[in-house]
Amino acid sequence: MRIALGIEYDGTDFFGWQRLSHGASVQASLEHALSFVAAQSIAVTCAGRTDAGVHGRCQVVHFDTDVQRDRRSWVLGACSNLPSTVAVLWAQPVPDDFHARFSARSRRYRYTILNRAIRPALDARYVAWERLPLDAERMHAAAQSLIGEHDFSAFRAISCQAAHARREVKYLSVQREGEHVVVDIEANAFLHHMVRNIVGSLLPVGRGEQPVEWVAGLLAGRDREVAGPTAAASGLTFIGPRYEKRWGLPEEVSE
Amino acid sequence: MRIALGIEYDGTDFFGWQRLSHGASVQASLEHALSFVAAQSIAVTCAGRTDAGVHGRCQVVHFDTDVQRDRRSWVLGACSNLPSTVAVLWAQPVPDDFHARFSARSRRYRYTILNRAIRPALDARYVAWERLPLDAERMHAAAQSLIGEHDFSAFRAISCQAAHARREVKYLSVQREGEHVVVDIEANAFLHHMVRNIVGSLLPVGRGEQPVEWVAGLLAGRDREVAGPTAAASGLTFIGPRYEKRWGLPEEVSE
Repeated sequence: MRIALGIEYDGTDFFGWQRLSHGASVQASLEHALSFVAAQSIAVTCAGRTDAGVHGRCQVVHFDTDVQRDRRSWVLGACSNLPSTVAVLWAQPVPDDFHARFSARSRRYRYTILNRAIRPALDARYVAWERLPLDAERMHAAAQSLIGEHDFSAFRAISCQAAHARREVKYLSVQREGEHVVVDIEANAFLHHMVRNIVGSLLPVGRGEQPVEWVAGLLAGRDREVAGPTAAASGLTFIGPRYEKRWGLPEEVSE
Repeated sequence: MRIALGIEYDGTDFFGWQRLSHGASVQASLEHALSFVAAQSIAVTCAGRTDAGVHGRCQVVHFDTDVQRDRRSWVLGACSNLPSTVAVLWAQPVPDDFHARFSARSRRYRYTILNRAIRPALDARYVAWERLPLDAERMHAAAQSLIGEHDFSAFRAISCQAAHARREVKYLSVQREGEHVVVDIEANAFLHHMVRNIVGSLLPVGRGEQPVEWVAGLLAGRDREVAGPTAAASGLTFIGPRYEKRWGLPEEVSE
């Protein structure tokens, strides 16, 4: 039997999603908790791996088991065996051909920038800080050049192991909300560090150091060396993947 | 010379505002940082002391010094000597008859409840958790009976050292925002634990365990023993005090 789970986590104190030999990971915490509930070893596959310090609003995983537990038992049992910074939001039996990663039609991320002279004290885990005034409208205009299917080599980490750099950005908006500048982005999939590298290249446009057209030029040039630096992990939250309605998953992860 | 400061802090890891011999306090951290900047001992007086785990969005303090520093030096110097969970937002010279506590015309607090079946993982520092469904409209209706000048003995901690229990609640609203129920309250001043005790008595109304009229009855009865339990500290943020415009303080702390 295959089960899908929705997972919320605060990534601050983890070395990232992926199980590691040398530090705490969300995956290892989750597998430990589920294995305790199942009384057998459970391995999970996620929709999108996140880096150290990056948060998850509704990560989705699947796992296979021959143990019978009702949905409530998976959720409450896992939650009571997880650290306080990870929670299982829901559990849902799915067909055997559902795959948390390969069935995902798109992924959504949110990047939040606190834009003021003084560093954050409250919410410091959940924002990146930009001291200089940002023009969110300029950033939004620059970002529109990234929408569509492109080769995103300019925004790809050197460590990225994807077979190719073509991705389709479906939605990208930059909006000011008081002292915050919020970047929302949806794509079919993302390259390693792609969101943080895009944000790192929108920031010089927002500060007025680069023209709006600079971002389109970076994309066309496909050269990571000339794009902006990788923006801080703390500002980034994986909102979650989206699947076809036919899988019957909760609304927040359905198309 | 008297200086006023706006202070933001995450109260999670502090034993509260007030300087203590046995644990970390926001006040001690701030006085340490300011004393370093001034190269002389500085003692601050705040608008409203907060308990362990309670946050500050814009606490206001004043202090006296004969050291000349420009506003920017107080702010940046203090910030660079404060822990990451405390920041000085602004500094403003004020007349000698300004007093952070006694000049405040009102104080505003916000209490945020995450209302869902599963405990919080993200934002856990900043919310209280209620598992059972809350009817925010019923809570709002019940809360309206507290508006005006009343004896708030029913919502006063046993440890409260105020001379009397009469306070004037100027504004009190309870609103649902998605999975959150948000309580906003403004009063001339508050008794110890008053906001958390009010929230603790609105919760049974929201869960349908008590009628809307119950809260008015608690107020009239003035008996702390029959009111609801003190709600968790994590949900509470001191938004800040408000002063008369004539002091020339920033907009967020002015009437």
